[in-house]
Formats: sequence, structure tokens, C-alpha cells
Amino acid sequence: MDKRKQPAGKMKKYIIAVDLGGTNLKIGLLNLQFKIKKKKILDTQNLGNKKNLILAIINSVKDLISKNRLKKENILGIGVGLPGPIDNQKGIVHFLPNIAGWREVRLGSILNRKLRMKVFLDNDVNLMALAENKLGAAKKYKNVVCLTLGTGVGGGIIINNSLYRGSDNASGEIGHIPLNEVGPACSCGGEACLERYVGNSIIMEEAKRLFKRDISLKELSRLAKENNRKALYLWDKVAWHLAIALAGVANLLNPDCVVIGGGVAGAGRILFDNVRKYIFERAMKIQSRRVKVVKADLGNNAGLIGAAILVKESIS
Amino acid sequence: MDKRKQPAGKMKKYIIAVDLGGTNLKIGLLNLQFKIKKKKILDTQNLGNKKNLILAIINSVKDLISKNRLKKENILGIGVGLPGPIDNQKGIVHFLPNIAGWREVRLGSILNRKLRMKVFLDNDVNLMALAENKLGAAKKYKNVVCLTLGTGVGGGIIINNSLYRGSDNASGEIGHIPLNEVGPACSCGGEACLERYVGNSIIMEEAKRLFKRDISLKELSRLAKENNRKALYLWDKVAWHLAIALAGVANLLNPDCVVIGGGVAGAGRILFDNVRKYIFERAMKIQSRRVKVVKADLGNNAGLIGAAILVKESIS
Repeated sequence: MDKRKQPAGKMKKYIIAVDLGGTNLKIGLLNLQFKIKKKKILDTQNLGNKKNLILAIINSVKDLISKNRLKKENILGIGVGLPGPIDNQKGIVHFLPNIAGWREVRLGSILNRKLRMKVFLDNDVNLMALAENKLGAAKKYKNVVCLTLGTGVGGGIIINNSLYRGSDNASGEIGHIPLNEVGPACSCGGEACLERYVGNSIIMEEAKRLFKRDISLKELSRLAKENNRKALYLWDKVAWHLAIALAGVANLLNPDCVVIGGGVAGAGRILFDNVRKYIFERAMKIQSRRVKVVKADLGNNAGLIGAAILVKESIS
Repeated sequence: MDKRKQPAGKMKKYIIAVDLGGTNLKIGLLNLQFKIKKKKILDTQNLGNKKNLILAIINSVKDLISKNRLKKENILGIGVGLPGPIDNQKGIVHFLPNIAGWREVRLGSILNRKLRMKVFLDNDVNLMALAENKLGAAKKYKNVVCLTLGTGVGGGIIINNSLYRGSDNASGEIGHIPLNEVGPACSCGGEACLERYVGNSIIMEEAKRLFKRDISLKELSRLAKENNRKALYLWDKVAWHLAIALAGVANLLNPDCVVIGGGVAGAGRILFDNVRKYIFERAMKIQSRRVKVVKADLGNNAGLIGAAILVKESIS
């Protein structure tokens, strides 16, 4: 008897996770404990248009299965995270603000038809929230708000250890909480949204104004750690804006924990200590005493791990 | 055989509901379909201090049972709504901002000891949210945010048809979402909270400034309906403030519905039409298309009905 053949009942199961971002397309093979066994990273921009991106996903999934000597029967399902509003029930990508050409794409049924496996889609920040709650910085907590700070400011909400999706899978838009009644116009159609104060490009514009030259977020963090006054002033302002929005979120949701991820979170203690201080000053007593503000734990892998959790939770 | 005696298994069951407010203490007898069969209203201020208020609750409950020829065995339990932060699990009233002398009162165990019935406590706006979701304006909806506009601005959140309490039963403080980064100091310790813009006393101060005399909310509503320009301006401003906070709530929670109750909601269409208009202008597309903004349906009875629902849901 061929030793590689196992009885069907004992067949080892895996999950395939896909994380499509504006920069990278990541594809991973995870076991049912959400450990990443294989990972492949492609360049989203190089792949080009929607058709080629979908083709790259399909081929990468097929590759991953065949190169690891697996069969379709070994795969529990495919989870896909995407950076935009998703109809999680119907498997539709409404649109992707940072990747052109995606509008009302029935990605779930396309992948299902081509790959003949169960496919589940969700917004990438929702998946990050799932991952941080299940295995990361918020695993001790049941009511959690996750925030990613990048070009856009996204969020995901965990209520009683379950992802809260809202009525259209469109909840968690912390980046679009108004910080002021009147303020700069936002790409969402609103005004004075948090994202218009702490989005990467806004921080970098402000830095350029202060330092009179282009300066990266990394350098800004380093300068702050060296007590550069301009850099400290700038991070203090970012912390203040974040804390006002989070004070509102704390008063409204009384969560155990706020997890902050994304590039800006790399500033570390300079940012986090001040966010905590200002939330404590601004939010109500019971809520501000409760809420922990912590840095995301799973970094770049959060999307893949969250996509795998989505598959397992959707199937079981 | 005495006809009034029924076999134990068929004994008719009722719930006793108590709604303690800054103005009135209401006690009601409800059937298991949450229909109010008897109701008694006392004057909170007349009753005086904490001890007398608790005594009045105990005596009213006893009265209600004996006058209706019931026995303790007929009563499923007692539900109590109170205007402040409550530890719903331990039955503790942390404090009541508008009724002096209440601090860390173990009301649950006091009533249980004196009455020997199951007792459940909760915040009054949480109970209003339960009632409006089960029987009122939001009964068609599963994700609901309730708002009461009075001296204080309170809120309650329903997620997937269940009350969301937060990690300390302190969620739903919509009145304390910051509308601006800098603004008037709020009694909560924060700044520029919604309550500081649309609380009754703030509206009436503003009205006095405009009309150069004292003017009631009722008169302000009447004047607006008669197209008085100052009154229209004032309600438009109230709607604007409300809508900014609700745009943030819609973006964050993507609810089906926002229910607005309390005195200010009496302004009717003048208020609601503008709130809808400004939310639509300010919130994100998917969220603003989804969210209905409706007036509370159950009026002054919401507290009693919600308290009865609390009992039934806690026991079953």
C-alpha cells in the first residue's frame, strides 16, 4: 500500500488564504490551527488589471495545491480579503478604492467556478480584526475595535468574540467618524473625517511643512525617539486626533480593547502613550478605565490568518 | 372545588416593571405579551430620599400583587429601569446623575431580600431600546441605535436583535460622542459632547437668546410648524448637530435604523426631515442609504415594556 495515501476520514485539511492589497497579493496555505505553512507574495501593480489579478489568484491557488502534493479534498475552503466594501453573503466586491477597475465583481462565484472549492470573501480590516481577536493582541478580550492606519484609515469591530458586520457588511469605518462639524472634505463625500487628519499622506504633508523637505513615516518615528521637537509635536497631534475619535468610540461601544495596526502604528510608544492619555482625559470614566489601547500583533500576516479564520468559522 | 384555584402548571404569569425617572416613579403589571394591565405613577421628587424611594417601590409592588389578587407565584420577576449606569449582572446602581443620593446601591439584592422575587436591573435607555426593537418603531430591524433627547442625551444599541451592553454595561453613550475636537465642557468630564449642543437646557438657552424671552420646547415646535424663521433656524441647527453625530454612528455601526425619542423628538418632521437630509449629506453612501431615522413609538411606556422584556429574556 502506498504510504502517502491516508484513509479519507483522516485526510489532513488545510485552508487557502488570499490577501489582495494595493501593494501586494499574498497567497498562503494554512493548517486548521491557522499556522502559515506556505506563503507567496506577488506585486499587485505588476499584475495589472482586474482580469490578470483574478487569473493570478486562480493560478497561485492551483500551484499551491499541486506543489504541496495536495488534492482539492485537502482544502477546506478559500478565504479572500480585499481592501474595500464587500458583500460577504453574496461574494461580491462592491469596489476597491485603491485598485482600479473593480466594481460589483462577483469574485466569489468566479473563483468557485474556476476552482470548484468553497470561497469566502471579506473586507481586509474585518479579517485583521478576526485574526487579532482570535490569535493576536486582542485574544483576551471579547469586545474589540481594530483600527488600521495607512493611506486610508480602516476599522473592524468584534462584539462578544464575533465579527460585527453591520447591516451591509459596511460597519467599522472609524476613519470616517467626523472629528469636527466643519473641516476638510473627505474622499468619502463627508467632511472632517478622522482619515483627513491621520491618513499617511496628511501626516507627511504636515511633516513636509514643518521640516521643509520630504520625510518618511519611519524617519519621523526615529526623530521622535531622538526627542526631535518637531517630530514629537507632530506625533502628539496625531495621537490627539486619534484619541478624540476613539473617545467617541469608547463612549459608544464600551469596548475592552482598541487594537491599532498599519504603518503609523510603527511610531510605537510615542504614539500609544499619548493616545491613552488623551482618551483618558476625554472619554467617560467607566469606559476610559476599561479600554486598553494596544498595538496589532500579527503584522503583515493578519490578513492571511483572518481569511483562514473566516473560512473555518463559515464552514463549521 | 374552588374555581379560582387553577392547577399550578396553568397559573397565569405576569411581570412587574418599575421605571424610576427623575420626575416619575412608574410601576406596572404586564402580561407575558408585554401588555400593560395596571399602571401606577408616583412623583419621584415628593417621595424624597433614596430610602423612601426604595420603600415606595417595595410597597407598590406588594400593593400591585395583593390588589390584583395575585400571589408571588404569579410573578415571573421584577424588572427595574433606572436613569444612570447600572451593573446589570450584579444588580448595582453605580449612580444616578439626576437623582441625588444614589451611589453603588445594591438595589437588586435589596429588592430581592424584601420581596423574595427575581429582580433584574438595567439602564432606562437600554430598556427603551429593547422595547422599541421588540414592539415599537424598530421591530422590523435587527441592528438599531436608540437615542433619547432630554436634559441628558442617552442611547442604547441593539446588535442582531440583542441588547449590546459593552464590557461594563456602559455602551450607547451617544450623547457623549465629541462633535468637535475643542468645545464647551461637558458634565461627563469631556468636551464638545453632543449633549452640550442638543440637550434640552442648551436648546432653551439658545431659544431665549434668539427670542429674548423664556420659551418652551413645545412652543418652539409650534412656532416652527407656523414657519417662524427663528424657530426653523433653531431646529435646523439641532438637526445638524444630531446628524453629525449620527453620521459617525452610521459609518461605524452600519445600522438599519436610528430611533429617536424624548421631549425634543416631539418637534416631529421639522426635526426628522433635516436629520435625514444631513446624515445623507455627511455619512458614507452604503450606510446612509441603509439607515432609517424614525421616531420612537412607545412613548412613556417604553421603560415599563423594556423592563418586562428584560425579565422575560433573562429568565427564559
